[in-house]
Amino acid sequence: MRILFVGDIVGRPGRKIFSALLPLLRKEFSKIDFVIVNGENAAAGKGLTDKIMNELFAAGVDGITSGNHIWDRSDFFTVLDGEPRVIRPANYPPGCPGLGWTVLSKNGMKLGLINLQGRVFMPDIDCPFRKADEVLETFADVPVLVDFHAEATSEKRVLGFYLDGRVSAFLGTHTHVQTADEEILPGGTAYISDVGMTGSFQSAIGMTLESVLPRFLTSLPSRFQVASDDLRLNAVIVDVDNETKKAVSIQRIARSLCETEA
Amino acid sequence: MRILFVGDIVGRPGRKIFSALLPLLRKEFSKIDFVIVNGENAAAGKGLTDKIMNELFAAGVDGITSGNHIWDRSDFFTVLDGEPRVIRPANYPPGCPGLGWTVLSKNGMKLGLINLQGRVFMPDIDCPFRKADEVLETFADVPVLVDFHAEATSEKRVLGFYLDGRVSAFLGTHTHVQTADEEILPGGTAYISDVGMTGSFQSAIGMTLESVLPRFLTSLPSRFQVASDDLRLNAVIVDVDNETKKAVSIQRIARSLCETEA
Amino acid sequence: MRILFVGDIVGRPGRKIFSALLPLLRKEFSKIDFVIVNGENAAAGKGLTDKIMNELFAAGVDGITSGNHIWDRSDFFTVLDGEPRVIRPANYPPGCPGLGWTVLSKNGMKLGLINLQGRVFMPDIDCPFRKADEVLETFADVPVLVDFHAEATSEKRVLGFYLDGRVSAFLGTHTHVQTADEEILPGGTAYISDVGMTGSFQSAIGMTLESVLPRFLTSLPSRFQVASDDLRLNAVIVDVDNETKKAVSIQRIARSLCETEA
Amino acid sequence: MRILFVGDIVGRPGRKIFSALLPLLRKEFSKIDFVIVNGENAAAGKGLTDKIMNELFAAGVDGITSGNHIWDRSDFFTVLDGEPRVIRPANYPPGCPGLGWTVLSKNGMKLGLINLQGRVFMPDIDCPFRKADEVLETFADVPVLVDFHAEATSEKRVLGFYLDGRVSAFLGTHTHVQTADEEILPGGTAYISDVGMTGSFQSAIGMTLESVLPRFLTSLPSRFQVASDDLRLNAVIVDVDNETKKAVSIQRIARSLCETEA
Ligand SMILES: [Fe+2]
Ligand SMILES: [Fe+2]
Ligand SMILES: [Fe+2]
Ligand SMILES: [Fe+2]
Ligand SMILES: [Fe+2]
Ligand SMILES: [Fe+2]
Ligand SMILES: [Fe+2]
Ligand SMILES: [Fe+2]
Repeated sequence: MRILFVGDIVGRPGRKIFSALLPLLRKEFSKIDFVIVNGENAAAGKGLTDKIMNELFAAGVDGITSGNHIWDRSDFFTVLDGEPRVIRPANYPPGCPGLGWTVLSKNGMKLGLINLQGRVFMPDIDCPFRKADEVLETFADVPVLVDFHAEATSEKRVLGFYLDGRVSAFLGTHTHVQTADEEILPGGTAYISDVGMTGSFQSAIGMTLESVLPRFLTSLPSRFQVASDDLRLNAVIVDVDNETKKAVSIQRIARSLCETEA
Repeated sequence: MRILFVGDIVGRPGRKIFSALLPLLRKEFSKIDFVIVNGENAAAGKGLTDKIMNELFAAGVDGITSGNHIWDRSDFFTVLDGEPRVIRPANYPPGCPGLGWTVLSKNGMKLGLINLQGRVFMPDIDCPFRKADEVLETFADVPVLVDFHAEATSEKRVLGFYLDGRVSAFLGTHTHVQTADEEILPGGTAYISDVGMTGSFQSAIGMTLESVLPRFLTSLPSRFQVASDDLRLNAVIVDVDNETKKAVSIQRIARSLCETEA
Repeated sequence: MRILFVGDIVGRPGRKIFSALLPLLRKEFSKIDFVIVNGENAAAGKGLTDKIMNELFAAGVDGITSGNHIWDRSDFFTVLDGEPRVIRPANYPPGCPGLGWTVLSKNGMKLGLINLQGRVFMPDIDCPFRKADEVLETFADVPVLVDFHAEATSEKRVLGFYLDGRVSAFLGTHTHVQTADEEILPGGTAYISDVGMTGSFQSAIGMTLESVLPRFLTSLPSRFQVASDDLRLNAVIVDVDNETKKAVSIQRIARSLCETEA
Repeated sequence: MRILFVGDIVGRPGRKIFSALLPLLRKEFSKIDFVIVNGENAAAGKGLTDKIMNELFAAGVDGITSGNHIWDRSDFFTVLDGEPRVIRPANYPPGCPGLGWTVLSKNGMKLGLINLQGRVFMPDIDCPFRKADEVLETFADVPVLVDFHAEATSEKRVLGFYLDGRVSAFLGTHTHVQTADEEILPGGTAYISDVGMTGSFQSAIGMTLESVLPRFLTSLPSRFQVASDDLRLNAVIVDVDNETKKAVSIQRIARSLCETEA
């Protein structure tokens, strides 16, 4: 089984490069079975809307994970409750809208998808380690991909090793910067600390430098603007052995439009 | 010299109890020379407006200090730049609107006013200790009142002792809960860790329990509502010796409407 | 039922003033039924030892609560596991030593004791709201006192109101500064945001100013020293109706040796 | 001019792989002019010692940068004051030991070296943006390499772009995970969000998984142990045009012993 996982899609520019590159990537990496994207920043950098979610599905997305920004739009909460292909971090407390894990089915194949969020430098939610244990008990005999949306590299490394051999892929998101530490852990789990982001790279992790710099210079609140220059897509391709559910390979992808077209 | 300093006024309910009680307090504590209020939450809990500022001045306020919430309304920035009786924390970086200290004059008396903000569990701004040293050099022979807007008790205690003998009063704000540790420090500075707040006490520090509880239960973002039940005013009265600039006394005040009318 | 609850006892100076004042307080407030102290800083400011715990029991303490500092001494962990009169925050995750709640029995009376810790600006542990709900189900028909060891005033106010009417007393600790907001909440729970501390007040919340100031000036790590000047005891006296389990009164206490002897 | 910059060397295992690989890297990348390493974790994961510093110089290191952990050993402070080839973040406040920038000279070439530290999720120190401006004014006509020791990717991206064209290289450290975003920014500055670390990769950023996992499961304090399995070196090679001081290329390096020997 081959899975394409795309890092946080930021705003319209992110959606633009994503929909432009997906067909090219499908050609280059033949037989992609599942396309998963992190969509927490897809709507103007803040959360998702019903319309944009459907746009992503129409473009060929099979499942959407998210993170802290999924809560930015409260009118999306009812959509979250009704659409099992979009998940939010499973370790948000009881009472939050939506699901934290799901099983996708396509062409006779199944893929378990779990979203978890870190706690270091992030909101006070339930323990991602214990939640992972709990959720994994509900899955039987399907390959599982975890999107761990977290800030601190230590938390990512430790949870990754903690789940090594129990999931097929453990992919970090949230920092919007792709890390170069992709590998197959000893137990057979494909690991990367952060997949990166999809959107403008002439930016502060997707937002214009002009709108973010004042925050650092003055500590005053400021409204960030989605940037649109130098569009790139960050992703990974994970190949999983259908028998063993172990990962066979993980490959980083970082593409701009022109590179891929060439 | 007698100074009334009123803790963070929260929204319309806070302004209501403040304007109702001020005349009564003037009777009870005769000859109040300066009335200073922390106004960072006066406009619906978030910052100040031109109109509300003028309402406070009309009610008898001589000077307004603030804190982190003063930046909530960017249309107030030009007012901040032009009105020397309203100050914001002095240790925000260069380039921020407004002033961090001022000298009020009234009936031939002068009062230096400095606003500083803590850094523990708060935005990354300039060092309040060094900024205090720097600002104090610009004052000559006036009594000085410091509003230290900060979260951590350790930072408050340490800066208070650091300035002991160099200012007449060092008054904490920001937690919205009055502390019971008012005293004259050994060097002659009137000290309290937090003056408290003015507004609804059937609340989570001024906001309705209904609007704040979900944040704690779910970690989802939520919009807080200003509460209006059980109105009280928190303040201190500081008496300063005009000759020595040392504080003679500091007295906590916590009043509801009915208590004071009685 | 009358309960004396003493705020964080800091080091030898704290133990000294506590043992000196307890007999005087017993005279002044006749018929104290239970003496509870927060002991997280009793051993040189950091945690507890077997010896000091026994010293406190010998002085007349019936139960000891704690907080984040209880983990400072790992050789105390086995004591924690075996001594039901010493508790640590109940919302630390499964696998931590010790108990988070207990029922004390004395002279035919019973008192439930729960220790909880906040999460705002503190370690990432389990939700104190849900843990409180869970623990309260295990108590039947005993008055219950909660020590909520937390930093943020909002978290304290909200959890206090959340438990109002379900516990007899909800007492905050951790900031080491006594607050002036003690009251009986509408449902009958005695409330205070922070009881304060017991030890040196010529200090940064119990530690010498000389040892703490450099941390604020330089951000370098530094070793804090327990201070010993100007000893005071901070506590509250809570009276509980034996029938209804509602609090009848809560009274703040802040004493130095000389004041009390006088 | 060719510069090899090596990411945080962690403990003895990190020193071991570093000294084993350096000669091989010198062969592979001929004419390395300056070897710079981040040494904040070189002594058992915590800071530096005089002995280890000299060991690094003897192995061929020309300059050592650091970060928050450089303060872990106070007996190193006098060394810091006397050795201009070892620097600590320049934006620690006045009064801290050591220097925050230096100019290295070798074979007639000069290289300016600046160490800065972020503030997001890190200690409250002076503004790295303004400190960078200030320090850069003191350098005349030398290529400059900045080690920005920081946690948040946004702060790294924004400061990197802020200094683009004003320094030859802007290299992030601290997360111990190499990022895949190396590039020459539009103004000619070689940029990477994090160079990564040098030490054990069967680990939580250099520390054994066994010693770090309990911290995440329980939130109890724990002593981390330096890990020693799966040793790798993370670095970048930056080539700078001697005339223009612009970067010509930046190349990521991630090597284990066997790979390089092959
Ligand atoms: Fe994101
Ligand atoms: Fe995120
Ligand atoms: Fe406020
Ligand atoms: Fe505030
Ligand atoms: Fe304490
Ligand atoms: Fe504590
Ligand atoms: Fe490091
Ligand atoms: Fe570091």
